[in-house]
Amino acid sequence: MKLTVYLAGEIHSDWREELKNKSKQAGLDLHFVAPQTNHDRSDNVGEDILGEQPGKLYKDDAASDINNFRTAVLMQKADVVIALFGEQYKQWNTAMDASAAMTLNKPTILIRPESLIHPLKELSNKANVTVETVDQALDVLKYVYE
Amino acid sequence: MKLTVYLAGEIHSDWREELKNKSKQAGLDLHFVAPQTNHDRSDNVGEDILGEQPGKLYKDDAASDINNFRTAVLMQKADVVIALFGEQYKQWNTAMDASAAMTLNKPTILIRPESLIHPLKELSNKANVTVETVDQALDVLKYVYE
Amino acid sequence: MKLTVYLAGEIHSDWREELKNKSKQAGLDLHFVAPQTNHDRSDNVGEDILGEQPGKLYKDDAASDINNFRTAVLMQKADVVIALFGEQYKQWNTAMDASAAMTLNKPTILIRPESLIHPLKELSNKANVTVETVDQALDVLKYVYE
Amino acid sequence: MKLTVYLAGEIHSDWREELKNKSKQAGLDLHFVAPQTNHDRSDNVGEDILGEQPGKLYKDDAASDINNFRTAVLMQKADVVIALFGEQYKQWNTAMDASAAMTLNKPTILIRPESLIHPLKELSNKANVTVETVDQALDVLKYVYE
Amino acid sequence: MKLTVYLAGEIHSDWREELKNKSKQAGLDLHFVAPQTNHDRSDNVGEDILGEQPGKLYKDDAASDINNFRTAVLMQKADVVIALFGEQYKQWNTAMDASAAMTLNKPTILIRPESLIHPLKELSNKANVTVETVDQALDVLKYVYE
Amino acid sequence: MKLTVYLAGEIHSDWREELKNKSKQAGLDLHFVAPQTNHDRSDNVGEDILGEQPGKLYKDDAASDINNFRTAVLMQKADVVIALFGEQYKQWNTAMDASAAMTLNKPTILIRPESLIHPLKELSNKANVTVETVDQALDVLKYVYE
Amino acid sequence: MKLTVYLAGEIHSDWREELKNKSKQAGLDLHFVAPQTNHDRSDNVGEDILGEQPGKLYKDDAASDINNFRTAVLMQKADVVIALFGEQYKQWNTAMDASAAMTLNKPTILIRPESLIHPLKELSNKANVTVETVDQALDVLKYVYE
Amino acid sequence: MKLTVYLAGEIHSDWREELKNKSKQAGLDLHFVAPQTNHDRSDNVGEDILGEQPGKLYKDDAASDINNFRTAVLMQKADVVIALFGEQYKQWNTAMDASAAMTLNKPTILIRPESLIHPLKELSNKANVTVETVDQALDVLKYVYE
Repeated sequence: MKLTVYLAGEIHSDWREELKNKSKQAGLDLHFVAPQTNHDRSDNVGEDILGEQPGKLYKDDAASDINNFRTAVLMQKADVVIALFGEQYKQWNTAMDASAAMTLNKPTILIRPESLIHPLKELSNKANVTVETVDQALDVLKYVYE
Repeated sequence: MKLTVYLAGEIHSDWREELKNKSKQAGLDLHFVAPQTNHDRSDNVGEDILGEQPGKLYKDDAASDINNFRTAVLMQKADVVIALFGEQYKQWNTAMDASAAMTLNKPTILIRPESLIHPLKELSNKANVTVETVDQALDVLKYVYE
Repeated sequence: MKLTVYLAGEIHSDWREELKNKSKQAGLDLHFVAPQTNHDRSDNVGEDILGEQPGKLYKDDAASDINNFRTAVLMQKADVVIALFGEQYKQWNTAMDASAAMTLNKPTILIRPESLIHPLKELSNKANVTVETVDQALDVLKYVYE
Repeated sequence: MKLTVYLAGEIHSDWREELKNKSKQAGLDLHFVAPQTNHDRSDNVGEDILGEQPGKLYKDDAASDINNFRTAVLMQKADVVIALFGEQYKQWNTAMDASAAMTLNKPTILIRPESLIHPLKELSNKANVTVETVDQALDVLKYVYE
Repeated sequence: MKLTVYLAGEIHSDWREELKNKSKQAGLDLHFVAPQTNHDRSDNVGEDILGEQPGKLYKDDAASDINNFRTAVLMQKADVVIALFGEQYKQWNTAMDASAAMTLNKPTILIRPESLIHPLKELSNKANVTVETVDQALDVLKYVYE
Repeated sequence: MKLTVYLAGEIHSDWREELKNKSKQAGLDLHFVAPQTNHDRSDNVGEDILGEQPGKLYKDDAASDINNFRTAVLMQKADVVIALFGEQYKQWNTAMDASAAMTLNKPTILIRPESLIHPLKELSNKANVTVETVDQALDVLKYVYE
Repeated sequence: MKLTVYLAGEIHSDWREELKNKSKQAGLDLHFVAPQTNHDRSDNVGEDILGEQPGKLYKDDAASDINNFRTAVLMQKADVVIALFGEQYKQWNTAMDASAAMTLNKPTILIRPESLIHPLKELSNKANVTVETVDQALDVLKYVYE
Repeated sequence: MKLTVYLAGEIHSDWREELKNKSKQAGLDLHFVAPQTNHDRSDNVGEDILGEQPGKLYKDDAASDINNFRTAVLMQKADVVIALFGEQYKQWNTAMDASAAMTLNKPTILIRPESLIHPLKELSNKANVTVETVDQALDVLKYVYE
């Protein structure tokens, strides 16, 4: 049984690659999809495709049109969502994607460091499972196949 | 026509009172609901009701059980959601509530200062309307009654 | 039994007033809601509330943010939708609102002149009832109360 | 990952063929579906299958029964909808299909020339992404696969 | 607690009046809605409102446009549906309305004489409760208020 | 593109075989599913599996449990529903299945002889397309692939 | 703001009356609905209304038809569900009603004694809030009004 | 036509293996999924993955997070649900899973011994089909393929 997993969250570390590799080693039949992880491309994609915009607000809005489109297409294909929060940045788009997933009843795993327990408490509470490490998230996925 | 408005977001300023007063002065038939705005009560409600928990994680989880319950009850009553982001704090529960509202097709207004344009760009893009001030949000509500 | 009726469509004639008056005379318990019918206000509301925008595209987008918000709020309150097409203008927002209503299974009446039979054939086919005059639409509403 | 794309809109130019060819050249795993693009067949299909009807209204209604059936079958298979508006014609069925898609949360790209910014502003605002050319729409699709 | 009850089915006996009277005597807070029970008006309403149609098929289709519109408006207001089958006639619109109600999870009571057990077995099985008399249906409604 | 078609309705003629054969000859990628067409098996399946029941009502209820289960499983797999009404019998389960399909927005074709126009007018009006012959239904399916 | 609360669960103690009284004393605007709490009436209602059945299975099935109908009507009116498990009995209908409520996203409070932590762990985990006493459940409801 | 079947319920007997073997012998194209049937692993999985918890309540809650996640992932893949109740244990998670499945309109078969007729009457009534043995459940599945 193949499952498609949407990997929301932090794009400044290589946790997606780590998860994919370990999933492969474990022989799990998982297909991973994700947002654009090239930060510059993600910020510029609006102007890259639609041309120069008249200011930062409009540049950002054009980019997020296309980033949200991408997320919408891939999220509807996903059987499971994993959202990882790092210690830096606001990461409101990650919170948005995780919340949308939960509202659509997509089974969702939250990965967050201990330091973020308090600010993430409502999101963590709403998630199906909350873990602290990528390995633990993988353990949860493995459990589905046991 | 009466509308119920859920006011998500920052609890460290008195923007909810300001909005309610101005709405009253404008003679709009609006009924406002909101999360617990007493920060301490919100953080402690789990232990207040369920008794002492074995550590911070469990205290936070108990509190967010009840905070999320409150939000779920009030959100389902809401015709409109307004979410205000301030410059401090992570405010991930605000992003979570706003995203849940949008996913449920609740018409949603985002209020955010200019300084947060970039980190909120995907959420702003998904909202029905984004404004910078409480007065502008009220103008949008007034427009519905024109 | 009170019914709320959303009146989509042409804003260049006084058909909404005509329908409201005749409904009142007939003693029907109907409450009517509608888009902004002041054309200038509808076109300018984005800049009226959010300030000057950097060009026509952005002015239109800001206005339609708020017009679509208004429609979303009022449409979800509607038990019935009536959409009237006139002979002038593209009226794509009317087609959009009518189609959204039908997709949400809101019972929908289409009013269109004979001259528009062909270009409106798919929309007419999807509507619950298609008539040619405001009086006929009122007759259909009266029938619900017989 | 294969995606099915419904191509709504103008049938008087060869934009669908252009998009299919360019998608193929780009190696994207896209499967395209569309309404009947033979205009005469689309207008006559009701009488072609059901026999002569008693007048234009009935001929059009019979044809749109079958055109709407086709759209309903194909739209439910679609992961993405692209709707292209040209400068001629009323194209209300295109607006209807695009609005139905958006209401069903199908990620939707609108293609429209600059001249149609104003009349399409509400539809454009509701779409996930609005572009001006077929190449830009393809760029958005490519971005999903990056 | 007020409940709205849609009374689908046979229009050749006075079972609706009987049910309303007995409900009133029992002091139940029930509001009843129903299809058009004047058979001639129901058959002719299409031509009454839209004018003469070119043949029986078109007359029937125009009438059922308006009858289905009425049902759609009233059904969405209903908390409970009661469908009564008599021994005469095909009553396919009754089966249609009952099935639509069940598919929408409207709690549904079926009233049918013993002679119709076999032909109604699938519909009866899908209904929440099946009874043989109007009095039994009223007993079921009374039970909700006990 | 493969489509699954649920064939509801009359089980006393061989219209399903005819449709399957003609579909095959036309090279359409259609997969057909249907209710139990062996009338005796359909009537007895409750007792066949669950053992003797205490009377006709209970035998019928046991059978329809299992017939409705079968329909529910197969209907959810269907992209399209075709419902054929013959001139004999009450066929209320056919009306039930067709109405459930339409309520779930499954594109539905109704096949009925001219003699049944009047009693089927509401169901016919609610169907996407109504035709008189199996060949016409096949023509509609072919049109989807044109 | 009035809330309707469905009180599922144990009918062998007077916890519903206790909750209603304390809610009244606290001045909360709550309206309570519940299953039939007269055990004999609940077991016999099928035969009471439909007459004698041919054995225990059929008597139970007739009763549960009507009990499930009652639950369906009242549950759809509920804004909140409270389910109380006692130490005796299987109480599978309570688990069924609580699970149905949660699946429909009705905010749900579970009340269970400490002795049932283990067997109720999955249900407790799925509930919005789990408490041990009626007073705690009332505290959670009060919190919504703070 | 392949069907995925979720097997909820008792984990203390080998009924799942029996069903799988007989299904294979019968040549049915069924794919079975199920909850964790290793009781110790199911009880300990929370601590196995997340580490030691501060007490029984927290250990159980951590385990059920992951068990419910597993169920959510597999249930959404299921076309059919079979729930088997044995004579021992509370089995409230089985009742929860069966009720969730029914609420989501997953066709559901209940297997229960005669001794459980009374306590399971509401759940049995809500299920599509209730049988007493694994063989009868298999007969129902076979019937879908006849």
